[in-house]
Amino acid sequence: MAAITYELIKQDEHTGARAGIIHTPHGSFPTPIFMPVGTQASVKGVSPDELKDLGAGIILSNTYHLFLRPGVDLIREAGGLHKFMHWDRAILTDSGGFQVFSLGDLRKITEEGVTFRSHLDGSKKFLSPEVSMQVQMGLGSDIVMAFDECVPYPADYNYAKQSTERTLRWAKRCKDTMTSPNQGLFGIVQGGMYKDLRKWHAQEMVNLDFPGYAVGGLSVGEPKDLMYEMLEYSTSLLPQDKPRYLMGVGTPDHLVEGVARGIDMFDCVYPTRVARNGMAMTWTGRLVMKNAAFTHDHHVLEEGCGCYACRNGYTRAYIRHLVRAGEIFGLRLLSLHNLWFLEEFVRRMRQSIIDGRFGEFRSDFLANYHPKG
Amino acid sequence: MAAITYELIKQDEHTGARAGIIHTPHGSFPTPIFMPVGTQASVKGVSPDELKDLGAGIILSNTYHLFLRPGVDLIREAGGLHKFMHWDRAILTDSGGFQVFSLGDLRKITEEGVTFRSHLDGSKKFLSPEVSMQVQMGLGSDIVMAFDECVPYPADYNYAKQSTERTLRWAKRCKDTMTSPNQGLFGIVQGGMYKDLRKWHAQEMVNLDFPGYAVGGLSVGEPKDLMYEMLEYSTSLLPQDKPRYLMGVGTPDHLVEGVARGIDMFDCVYPTRVARNGMAMTWTGRLVMKNAAFTHDHHVLEEGCGCYACRNGYTRAYIRHLVRAGEIFGLRLLSLHNLWFLEEFVRRMRQSIIDGRFGEFRSDFLANYHPKG
Repeated sequence: MAAITYELIKQDEHTGARAGIIHTPHGSFPTPIFMPVGTQASVKGVSPDELKDLGAGIILSNTYHLFLRPGVDLIREAGGLHKFMHWDRAILTDSGGFQVFSLGDLRKITEEGVTFRSHLDGSKKFLSPEVSMQVQMGLGSDIVMAFDECVPYPADYNYAKQSTERTLRWAKRCKDTMTSPNQGLFGIVQGGMYKDLRKWHAQEMVNLDFPGYAVGGLSVGEPKDLMYEMLEYSTSLLPQDKPRYLMGVGTPDHLVEGVARGIDMFDCVYPTRVARNGMAMTWTGRLVMKNAAFTHDHHVLEEGCGCYACRNGYTRAYIRHLVRAGEIFGLRLLSLHNLWFLEEFVRRMRQSIIDGRFGEFRSDFLANYHPKG
Repeated sequence: MAAITYELIKQDEHTGARAGIIHTPHGSFPTPIFMPVGTQASVKGVSPDELKDLGAGIILSNTYHLFLRPGVDLIREAGGLHKFMHWDRAILTDSGGFQVFSLGDLRKITEEGVTFRSHLDGSKKFLSPEVSMQVQMGLGSDIVMAFDECVPYPADYNYAKQSTERTLRWAKRCKDTMTSPNQGLFGIVQGGMYKDLRKWHAQEMVNLDFPGYAVGGLSVGEPKDLMYEMLEYSTSLLPQDKPRYLMGVGTPDHLVEGVARGIDMFDCVYPTRVARNGMAMTWTGRLVMKNAAFTHDHHVLEEGCGCYACRNGYTRAYIRHLVRAGEIFGLRLLSLHNLWFLEEFVRRMRQSIIDGRFGEFRSDFLANYHPKG
């Protein structure tokens, strides 16, 4: 049996939204799912116990960062990433491709792979489909991402075509290298903002028969409408019996729109990053905790919220004080709240799909939500 | 009945060491005790639940910091410091005196009190015995410290005498102002490094009949031998039926020597501060987690330790990685470990007193402990 399988529970009648379950060697989790990001083998400020408490069934970790520090040999020696960081539920690792391509002048791309300078010490490093697979096998993640190039935006047709063709060749090399029976390799569909490239690439990737697919190259600076158009088009080309993953997306408005277009999985540093910037996510938008309006506000961050901070009665006034005073416990309470919020958001969204009222959930949410708080 | 009472359980036959219990309106705790420091209404990086898990029965918070930010009015409005920060066990607050005297050129002392500039915004502020008591009544701490001057070291006899006499006058004003029946005001014995001043002041303070006494003006730069001599002399002047508190002391070697000289209570930022500097406290000394020696060390911080990090199997290699990567979860694990270590240290020390083998505990510990790790 494949390491990663997808079980469709309910398909919404009016949109692409669907509720499912993904089974992995480290447990099953419901979809749609939001994956907290543990870039360096730790979700910033949050313990694995706390991640379980807020209902996370899978987290993401970054191959690029772990490849450079502490290095895959140490993690392999420790018994793999799960054991190293004490997380016994599922882990998805990215390929490192996105990070090395983002290095700009510090990297050089050839057909073989990417030579780059480490952002830590400037040393010369090399990542390729084969190296990325070897590293991810050493990490032992449940879901492994193919090594690809995220086509930048804007990109002319010729660049997008050549890049997408190379990504396909690299995907084949990834598939040939990834031999672990306990890990599932997801393909990434690119094609830039060109539908014919998207279509061609999706079909080629589907022919390779991956256990799951990411829609790549979106949320990279293109207009929102274009992103949604490309997303909807891309998912329409993917099989119903495999999970679809939209990488690096993590605001609730994007999540609901992604789900409406057939996406099952999301990840983003957003909830923990804005927490460290002193912001709380709520069903109506973000709260900037430093605002004087919260000085005497002895209510919890959001009424009815089940997160650690809210269910224990930590008040806006106290959290505002902690944030202003630079106390890290404040950032921790906000991180726990924001991660809970997103996990709760996908739980409720999933229930609305099962109950046949996703459209209502979506319109109610968008009517009350103000992205900039 | 007095808000704060001390119950002597066992007096060591050979030293001043004693085991006891202190009863407060927010529960009782065994002594000797170490109090974690929550300067700004939060023990840095650690939740109240975690403090309970490691066995803390009382924490310290700083009047100076809370007076400036968020201000006592807000905390009073929130229902007091316990409620504001979600800590339902005992709290001791200092008087703010030590901090304002430490401001150097930014403060001016008169008989009435101390005028100073806030370190936050430079605004002009005033603290006095009366103001300190009013603030501490607003905070609602269980143990309130008298507003005093910590005689600096070195200080000539005349300065020490005048300062100590003023501290006595201030202690009387504190006592007159502190009218809350649910709070116990501790006196602070000063006198610099002059035994006759120590003796005079201790007797005068004992005549005022406080429910507890701190030995002040020690660990301020004087040689260790002198500190221990003054400490032993000071505690010999204090009543047996009241707790004694040595302020700002928190390394295990100082704790065991303080207990041998009749001290019951300690506080210090040391365990959380060195944690944030990437160090782990152990029974043999400090571990600097960045050291390359720990790179492949897949053992816990200290074998047999019951702290959250060790009992869950977090390894030195993983914690080293987190510290090097700047991940705050590493500092959190180290803070939990160090605080547990000191609480466990005083628990074992107390048991040794009860079992009549404190001398053995002390010599065994000192034989194996290397203060600089």
